[in-house]
Amino acid sequence: MAKNNALPTQAEDFSGWYNDIVYRADMVDQGPVRGSMIIKPYGYSLWENIQKNLDAMFKATGHENLYFPLLIPMSFFEREAQHVEGFAPELAVVTHAGGKELEEPLAIRPTSETIIGEAYSRWVQSYRDLPLLYNQWVNVMRWEMRTRPFLRTTEFLWQEGHTAHATAEEALAETRLMLDIYAEFAEEFGAVPVIKGEKTEGERFAGALMTLTIEAMMRDGKALQAGTTHYMGENFSRAFDITFNDVNNDQAYAHTTSWGLSTRFIGAIIMTHGDDKGLIMPPKLAPTQLVVVPIYRANDEDAKAGVMGEVERLATALKEKGVRVKVDDREGLSPGRKFNEWEQKGVPLRVELGPKDLEKGEALLADRLTGEKSSVPLADIAERVPAALEAFHEALFQRAAQFRTEHTFEAGDYDEFQRFVERGFVYAAHCGRVECEDQIQEETKATARCIPLEGASAEGATCVKCGEPSGYPRKVVFAKAY
Amino acid sequence: MAKNNALPTQAEDFSGWYNDIVYRADMVDQGPVRGSMIIKPYGYSLWENIQKNLDAMFKATGHENLYFPLLIPMSFFEREAQHVEGFAPELAVVTHAGGKELEEPLAIRPTSETIIGEAYSRWVQSYRDLPLLYNQWVNVMRWEMRTRPFLRTTEFLWQEGHTAHATAEEALAETRLMLDIYAEFAEEFGAVPVIKGEKTEGERFAGALMTLTIEAMMRDGKALQAGTTHYMGENFSRAFDITFNDVNNDQAYAHTTSWGLSTRFIGAIIMTHGDDKGLIMPPKLAPTQLVVVPIYRANDEDAKAGVMGEVERLATALKEKGVRVKVDDREGLSPGRKFNEWEQKGVPLRVELGPKDLEKGEALLADRLTGEKSSVPLADIAERVPAALEAFHEALFQRAAQFRTEHTFEAGDYDEFQRFVERGFVYAAHCGRVECEDQIQEETKATARCIPLEGASAEGATCVKCGEPSGYPRKVVFAKAY
Repeated sequence: MAKNNALPTQAEDFSGWYNDIVYRADMVDQGPVRGSMIIKPYGYSLWENIQKNLDAMFKATGHENLYFPLLIPMSFFEREAQHVEGFAPELAVVTHAGGKELEEPLAIRPTSETIIGEAYSRWVQSYRDLPLLYNQWVNVMRWEMRTRPFLRTTEFLWQEGHTAHATAEEALAETRLMLDIYAEFAEEFGAVPVIKGEKTEGERFAGALMTLTIEAMMRDGKALQAGTTHYMGENFSRAFDITFNDVNNDQAYAHTTSWGLSTRFIGAIIMTHGDDKGLIMPPKLAPTQLVVVPIYRANDEDAKAGVMGEVERLATALKEKGVRVKVDDREGLSPGRKFNEWEQKGVPLRVELGPKDLEKGEALLADRLTGEKSSVPLADIAERVPAALEAFHEALFQRAAQFRTEHTFEAGDYDEFQRFVERGFVYAAHCGRVECEDQIQEETKATARCIPLEGASAEGATCVKCGEPSGYPRKVVFAKAY
Repeated sequence: MAKNNALPTQAEDFSGWYNDIVYRADMVDQGPVRGSMIIKPYGYSLWENIQKNLDAMFKATGHENLYFPLLIPMSFFEREAQHVEGFAPELAVVTHAGGKELEEPLAIRPTSETIIGEAYSRWVQSYRDLPLLYNQWVNVMRWEMRTRPFLRTTEFLWQEGHTAHATAEEALAETRLMLDIYAEFAEEFGAVPVIKGEKTEGERFAGALMTLTIEAMMRDGKALQAGTTHYMGENFSRAFDITFNDVNNDQAYAHTTSWGLSTRFIGAIIMTHGDDKGLIMPPKLAPTQLVVVPIYRANDEDAKAGVMGEVERLATALKEKGVRVKVDDREGLSPGRKFNEWEQKGVPLRVELGPKDLEKGEALLADRLTGEKSSVPLADIAERVPAALEAFHEALFQRAAQFRTEHTFEAGDYDEFQRFVERGFVYAAHCGRVECEDQIQEETKATARCIPLEGASAEGATCVKCGEPSGYPRKVVFAKAY
């Protein structure tokens, strides 16, 4: 981060652009421990808006929130073989507490299937106790070696839903429902177009029978997994003994699911929408939707009084319309510097108001996405802004969707595959063998992002890499990924 | 917890009553690690309502939320002498992560003054950067030996505000402002009357120059500290080098504050309002404000259809009024059992509606506080409930205030002090010496809860214990405490 130099352009150094803009826009700061981050108010406010809207969708579909302890006995992880293999290497472990060495070391949760499974085994006795539809908003920890703000940090914030059901059908329906909710949230609130699909065996969650994902395209053509839902079958029920008496009074194992979306989604927003000037915030999640910059000469107290009076009236009228508005009345900063700062922070709309505008009874309304400015009668601004924000959202989504279309390819052979995968998403038939996937990754750095739920049929097609028959009904989406 | 036996009465075993009701009312469950708790949906929903309302008050007074890392390098604690002395014995320590031993052990935050102080030292350069008015909603950990759900658990949820100011006056004003906000929140939302006061030297936060507190009386006459605000002076600024150039361009140390309210407040609500039937929820925070219990004979499908139709209409009308309503349409449970369950959970209002009520065009409205039932025309219910909830809040507050009045005493001498302190709060003059306070605690188990901001003057009075001149302008509140 070099605060006094220019922001790198996305074309010349996308990674440098990202690493720079998250600090410039005051989203984040480094924590004292390697790989940790401080989420600053501008970043946290975005997370609060994500939480509020996603939480409402969870509750509207019958889920309730609760809270499980942070520390999990190490022995819990051993109970599900794939789970321990997946998570043991990343655990942070508490060995001492209250001045003494603990009898059993405790892990900071990397995810909570195990501790929740143990409780569900006590909470579920009869089919009447099912389904359990619970979620928690918490911090989790995974000791990763290579970290980047929001994308991969040792500690991150997320929600983890954990449900238990009487039948496989119900659990699978939940897994798909939550995927639909994530996709709807990403598109309707984040303006982030996503592909819904199933993970291949090699990319599944540790302990899941099926993992569904929403995959978004960043502006360097890479994929970012923005939310996942998992069907566990009876794996965790057998490991933690979540049994119940079914309608016929026979003992059965519950079918469980889990699903999570994290502060990574902030990274998705940044890299889906940002441009060379900085961030562009999707209006429905933006901490500030509109900033008003009053303009007057220093020491011209009359001009200041007139302008500020109108600015306050305007801000009040906008707040009454439900607009998240900020008045930038800081002294000692030029309007130009304020414009730059709010552009960098990606505030969708800006109103500029000076004495001449006031005389004419209008103000300038600037659009962060198009860069256009237009004169709007003062009396009309509050009325027009909600629709302008709606249009901004739509334009932002369309821009991202178009970018994705322009960077999505179908590969007929492996030569094409290797060329296309440098530029974006590649649809290709695949045999479904983990070894073949691994070989593609080794040679191209691309991974199978998902088998999309909708899209080109792969019937009769052969694997783009090895020529074996396609292992899936549809072509697989491959891409380099975050 | 003996689920099949009766709930102990408060009079015979208050502690047993508490330990039993938190499980019976489905607020909490035990976690697998000693001293940890699972906050179940009914308890967590109460916490969400606490968060939502308190957070709005923070934001209305200019505070913003952010998020600091969970893990703090052990060396940070050493920098403030009193702070390390206060917290070191309770730390939980991560020594291994990612399969390796860490170079420096990391503590799970017991509170975040140190890690925040380190960041503030980087964020503050000039007086223009001040004040910093930040808060975070997080989990913290203090390895306590004797734990009880909500009151004292190794991990708990709270908010911790941390502010930095250019002058002592501003920091002191913040410390008092946040105390006022806590008091207003406790009384206006929790219906919990509180005494605002200052902690004596022996009871101060580790590292603070001044600690202010709100103290509530539980129904066994004991005190519960329900929220505290701390003025740190320059202690943490000197320890973490939070310096700035003031208006005269001289270097100065910032003055900092911190303030916190935790899931302990749930304990305060339970023990301020509960009775021998169970919980009584303050309406403004209650997860469910009104429960509708439809009544019909099993197999009488016509009666069921009529009743449920009206119940749904009523629930919709109540929701439109902003009432948090639940319809208990569970099959296979008698109305009586449902009544008991919702009484135990403390839902303020209950509507009972059966075929005969429907014929008469009315329903029974039951009040959890008074136990009274009254017939109300169906057409009027939705209109009346908001006012009934308001009246319920007021009555609940008055009941608690009256209980406190009846259990508050002034002690002229130490004999009286010793007798009164078995029954509630005791106002008494005190010399202000820590050793004298300690001796009182040793002999009576009572502690100095606070020097109240308002109340009886202690001018010219002598210490109730040692006879030395009063060390404070007002009489001190003593009580046994949680």
